[in-house]
Amino acid sequence: MSTVDEVVLLGGDGMPALMGRVERVLETVGAGHGPALGRPASDTLAAGGKRLRPLLVLICGGAAGDEALVRAAAAVELIHMATLVHDDVVDAALLRRGRRTVFAADGRPAAVATGDFLFSRSFGLLAENDAQEQVRTLSDACFALARGELAQRHDAYRIDVAEERYLQRCELKTARLFAAACRLGALAARRPAAVATALEAYGTRLGLAFQMLDDLLDVSGPAERTGKHRGTDLLDGTVTLPLILARRSDPELGEVDLRAVTSREHAEALCDRIAATPALDGTRARAAALVREAKDALGDHVDPSVERPLAEIADRIAERYA
Amino acid sequence: MSTVDEVVLLGGDGMPALMGRVERVLETVGAGHGPALGRPASDTLAAGGKRLRPLLVLICGGAAGDEALVRAAAAVELIHMATLVHDDVVDAALLRRGRRTVFAADGRPAAVATGDFLFSRSFGLLAENDAQEQVRTLSDACFALARGELAQRHDAYRIDVAEERYLQRCELKTARLFAAACRLGALAARRPAAVATALEAYGTRLGLAFQMLDDLLDVSGPAERTGKHRGTDLLDGTVTLPLILARRSDPELGEVDLRAVTSREHAEALCDRIAATPALDGTRARAAALVREAKDALGDHVDPSVERPLAEIADRIAERYA
Repeated sequence: MSTVDEVVLLGGDGMPALMGRVERVLETVGAGHGPALGRPASDTLAAGGKRLRPLLVLICGGAAGDEALVRAAAAVELIHMATLVHDDVVDAALLRRGRRTVFAADGRPAAVATGDFLFSRSFGLLAENDAQEQVRTLSDACFALARGELAQRHDAYRIDVAEERYLQRCELKTARLFAAACRLGALAARRPAAVATALEAYGTRLGLAFQMLDDLLDVSGPAERTGKHRGTDLLDGTVTLPLILARRSDPELGEVDLRAVTSREHAEALCDRIAATPALDGTRARAAALVREAKDALGDHVDPSVERPLAEIADRIAERYA
Repeated sequence: MSTVDEVVLLGGDGMPALMGRVERVLETVGAGHGPALGRPASDTLAAGGKRLRPLLVLICGGAAGDEALVRAAAAVELIHMATLVHDDVVDAALLRRGRRTVFAADGRPAAVATGDFLFSRSFGLLAENDAQEQVRTLSDACFALARGELAQRHDAYRIDVAEERYLQRCELKTARLFAAACRLGALAARRPAAVATALEAYGTRLGLAFQMLDDLLDVSGPAERTGKHRGTDLLDGTVTLPLILARRSDPELGEVDLRAVTSREHAEALCDRIAATPALDGTRARAAALVREAKDALGDHVDPSVERPLAEIADRIAERYA
């Protein structure tokens, strides 16, 4: 994603080289186990993505750029990848980022094992840092991810889910890993506790905004931009902020039986109905407020060489979805 | 399992209380997240099982019985449980130990997330021990488990799989976690490196024997004893030692197309054919040799209060399947 590539550059002259080192660590993860064992993991990691989480680790860690920081960055990306591989098992998804998923290419057993493999490699890699607080931070984030996934499945098809509950889910399934990325960067660079806390607060708010805008895009599209049809969340029974807000001005939306929404056309018609309310603007406004809060959280704790790229990332995320 | 209950007693007067403390740690894992989030995990943990791996941790840790040892024991069991929950997803298994699996009760999404939840809780719990070597040991074992699962799926339906390859799979998917349990006990009790190595060697051999005898039982039954029909491995396309050995005296067995084995009757007929060769005795003999090697590995490194219950466990495992 070009916006993040630009932000990599904002991270300082050394950032592209550091990100390159993270990539090389990721490449070694699947290596050395023969084609049958390592290939699904290697393919997953090579498929790329925004690498936003490792970038947060590196920026929050500052220019130190030692091995511990690179390992922490790679460890966070491995967890993110593990959850994507498992999500694709759950959704029986055939494509991700235009490539076949492990589930599609190698079947469910290999995909479950590949996710587990990536999880365990992540902890193994971070264990090399010999810093228990880092392992605990990552473990807590993983724990939150699993709880978020369970909460989302539990809420499936509940059209009346409360906004508070939605926010809690976003925190668990997205914001905690963003926060952990920022905290890990601070820990690996041995920053003072107050700095780590400020960076973590930034990560939480950024993650919430990121998830909210992702949910917005699922309703607003356009498909050319997102690479997928509108309304996929609705087809999954996942109720997100746009629908929660839309219910308020169009109460009939609160009566829809989501289990009956089984066609793409039906889902897109619902998206149109949500878009006819002020809900999309409301979602954008809430995300924009979170982006502001994220930047404010950095306060006076962080020096400009760190604050500038973090503020820039927050703005780019907000813009991308505006 | 009564044999292990007896061995718990052999572990010394304090062992039942220690195992009780492990159970209480396991009970807390699913607690505090509301019924929807914690219940699948709690149910899985409450469903019991032999608790053989935590018992190994505790015995290898000796009478110390401090919190670190109890946490290590619980962490190993959490990993074991996580892999069972994920295995049930892969196999679409409805029952385990006579109870509904998470997959059956809550569906695939909840089961994938519950496995991830148990994995992350395990690392979070062990991180409290503030001992990097322990995290590394557990991570390496998890990594092996996932590689073992991938290797087994890769080998599926290959009737000509080599004995060496089979042994490698047993090591990855079973023996490494047994070895890690023994090593974690030694580490948590701060035993000398030579002792940890000896205990780990014991665990590896015990785990290999355990897996081999489990594979034997799948062919020999009887179903009344195993709680499942004979030949389930064959129906999965999993080629194990009995078939590998049977091929040698009944070469036509090496020509069977396992993909065509789709009925229970067909699988049981194949089991009968394997049983008509010396393969079951051969498997038993190999497992018995491994049990002897396990006990020998303890050598002079381990004092009798540890050696006795470990030797007893090895003998009980061998007897149970004899």
